[in-house]
Amino acid sequence: MSMISMPTEADFSRYAELAVKKGVNIQPGQQLEVRADISQAPLVRHVVKAAYAAGAKQVFVNWSDEETSKIRYFDAPADSFKEFPDWLKARFEQLAEEKTAFLSIVSDDPDALNGVESSRISDANRAAGQALAKWRQYVMSDNVSWSIVAGASEAWAQKVFPGREDAVAALWQAIFAATRMDQEDVVAAWDTHDQSLRSRAKLLTEKKYAKLHYTAPGTELTIGLPKKHVFLGGGGPNADGIDFIANMPTEEVFTLADKDSVEGHVSSTKPLSYSGNLIDEFTLWFEGGKVIKAEAKKGQAALDELLNMDEGARRIGEVALVPDDSPISNSGLLFYNTLFDENASCHLALGRAYSTCLEGGPSMSQDELAENGANDSMTHVDFMIGSAEMNIDGEQEDGTREAIMRDGNWVI
Amino acid sequence: MSMISMPTEADFSRYAELAVKKGVNIQPGQQLEVRADISQAPLVRHVVKAAYAAGAKQVFVNWSDEETSKIRYFDAPADSFKEFPDWLKARFEQLAEEKTAFLSIVSDDPDALNGVESSRISDANRAAGQALAKWRQYVMSDNVSWSIVAGASEAWAQKVFPGREDAVAALWQAIFAATRMDQEDVVAAWDTHDQSLRSRAKLLTEKKYAKLHYTAPGTELTIGLPKKHVFLGGGGPNADGIDFIANMPTEEVFTLADKDSVEGHVSSTKPLSYSGNLIDEFTLWFEGGKVIKAEAKKGQAALDELLNMDEGARRIGEVALVPDDSPISNSGLLFYNTLFDENASCHLALGRAYSTCLEGGPSMSQDELAENGANDSMTHVDFMIGSAEMNIDGEQEDGTREAIMRDGNWVI
Repeated sequence: MSMISMPTEADFSRYAELAVKKGVNIQPGQQLEVRADISQAPLVRHVVKAAYAAGAKQVFVNWSDEETSKIRYFDAPADSFKEFPDWLKARFEQLAEEKTAFLSIVSDDPDALNGVESSRISDANRAAGQALAKWRQYVMSDNVSWSIVAGASEAWAQKVFPGREDAVAALWQAIFAATRMDQEDVVAAWDTHDQSLRSRAKLLTEKKYAKLHYTAPGTELTIGLPKKHVFLGGGGPNADGIDFIANMPTEEVFTLADKDSVEGHVSSTKPLSYSGNLIDEFTLWFEGGKVIKAEAKKGQAALDELLNMDEGARRIGEVALVPDDSPISNSGLLFYNTLFDENASCHLALGRAYSTCLEGGPSMSQDELAENGANDSMTHVDFMIGSAEMNIDGEQEDGTREAIMRDGNWVI
Repeated sequence: MSMISMPTEADFSRYAELAVKKGVNIQPGQQLEVRADISQAPLVRHVVKAAYAAGAKQVFVNWSDEETSKIRYFDAPADSFKEFPDWLKARFEQLAEEKTAFLSIVSDDPDALNGVESSRISDANRAAGQALAKWRQYVMSDNVSWSIVAGASEAWAQKVFPGREDAVAALWQAIFAATRMDQEDVVAAWDTHDQSLRSRAKLLTEKKYAKLHYTAPGTELTIGLPKKHVFLGGGGPNADGIDFIANMPTEEVFTLADKDSVEGHVSSTKPLSYSGNLIDEFTLWFEGGKVIKAEAKKGQAALDELLNMDEGARRIGEVALVPDDSPISNSGLLFYNTLFDENASCHLALGRAYSTCLEGGPSMSQDELAENGANDSMTHVDFMIGSAEMNIDGEQEDGTREAIMRDGNWVI
């Protein structure tokens, strides 16, 4: 019986270069922040090397250790989760003001915080969410370049490939397949893919739909789109005109919902790992844009904590379209990680909208954003609703409807 | 042929508890900062657990990765080493103002930065030294609790036990022996040891020596002591009266020198690992307290960079006495790490004095400290001068002399 081999140093080097050049697209003299678990050190070192080779002035690695975090969640006093250090808030803001690029390497165990009192997690998320409001605006308006890529960890790999001795290697292989690392010229492959997503987004923007209608088993949903909505896909420019790609992989085209115009109900089609806990088989009911009822077969407490984060956590910030016939979806793998699962499925996000999804949005005030239908929240959590049984129609201002997706795939 | 075994989880747990309870002596509700290389994660997790068990409010782990740091030192642009981030300065100061305890786990490769342009290292040290001046004052006046302990890393272990397959395990064994972890009741062993060092320090303080005379091969040195000098040893209280032990192991009793009254020359007896480079077989010549000549058989450039850090880097801040007949010295091991080698040998430190070594020092202004003979600098680097051939005399104000050490050991 043969085993899958672990990536070589050359593989890590190539992947690091992809993240640095196509992901955050580091410019000479720029700073880079890399967030990673210590288990990702072999990859991080290549990222740091690639960033300096690209001319980075300084790379700050913001290490975490999932095991240490777990100890805190179980053992620290409950009150401490309501605090967020001023210096940590200052750190993120100063880095963003200095136009630092932000690269996250996600490798989370989907079940990491299983068994932790849910109020501890929501207190911590709320404290961080409030403290990092300003930083979040920098990032979510693409004022700075940012990117999220993945690295395989033992715990995550065991969730995706349970019981396999070569689970970590197999997960790396799946990550590399999803990020086109299996193509000979990975940068050229990304350029082609990027162009195709941008074209699709342009086409949808020009349709000027007023509403989207979703139907699928467990789903009957209508989402109003703001007049100034723009569909985005692939890479795009930051405030200084430097292109970057915020997610690798990415298969989606997305825009924002009108925060007050979501009606009906929608059911999840994949489990959602939210803050170290799985939420699965859930349905949300909307009225006037707001979730008025939420039921989950698994993870009800985590779902409730998410919805109760703040006012905006009950409203839709992002609407994303992904065909069922897409590479990650066709792999048949369930990643238990949003970066992958959201790119295998149409999805929505509860919480804050990307201001880049509104024409002129990045320069709008918070009030102007709200007037134009953009939702505000300290959270932004994507959840998967797509399947081979989903149909989506677009409705124009004048009431004419056309099919956008049938049986989960593009017909437009 | 038998191999030494790696520490068990139980060993790490016991060692972590020693560091948390006797080292920084965490109090309920207090914060702890742990600085460690990612290679020390197995120990760090036990430290975090022990800190929460002792009632810590929050533990911040400040991870580093020697491999990543090396990449920076070789690949980052030269100018970047002159910068130190404001947020990092703010981080240290805020933590100290909040009475956070600081625990360092040192595991450095003594040769880590071998081959790096020395100006990069000195620029980085100077930038950090200037930025962290305020924080350094908190720590060096024992305003907050702090402690330095060690963890074995592969690169360090290979330096101490070259070519041995079980080098890391052997280094752990040596670390544990030096920290009395081989005693059944390690806390009781530390209490006894602590009392013995405190008694020795009290005896020496009461002698009210005006000068110390050192003679050994390559050494003819006279060090003036300030009138208000106090010898310290073992643990001591922080500003809030909580005892802590700043170094584990510790075998020294120490005070400060009069910064203007050091005359003669002194030769090193062990190599000094300074910022990732070894300095060995060096002699310093003093006039009026200041180094006027410095010659090293190895690491001259690093020695020069150290002496040129600032005005105070050429003057003595600390005078420490350690008998040649002490546990670490008797192990016969050369650790290439100051935490161990300084506790096997009489030593001096170039740079800043501990204000706690002056009666009333912690509440003195910088000017008052200087008037009382205390040296100021952004650096503090211990170097080893003791041996079995060293004799030390104490001289009273009235000129009477008595033997303190003969052939490297106490005679007082």
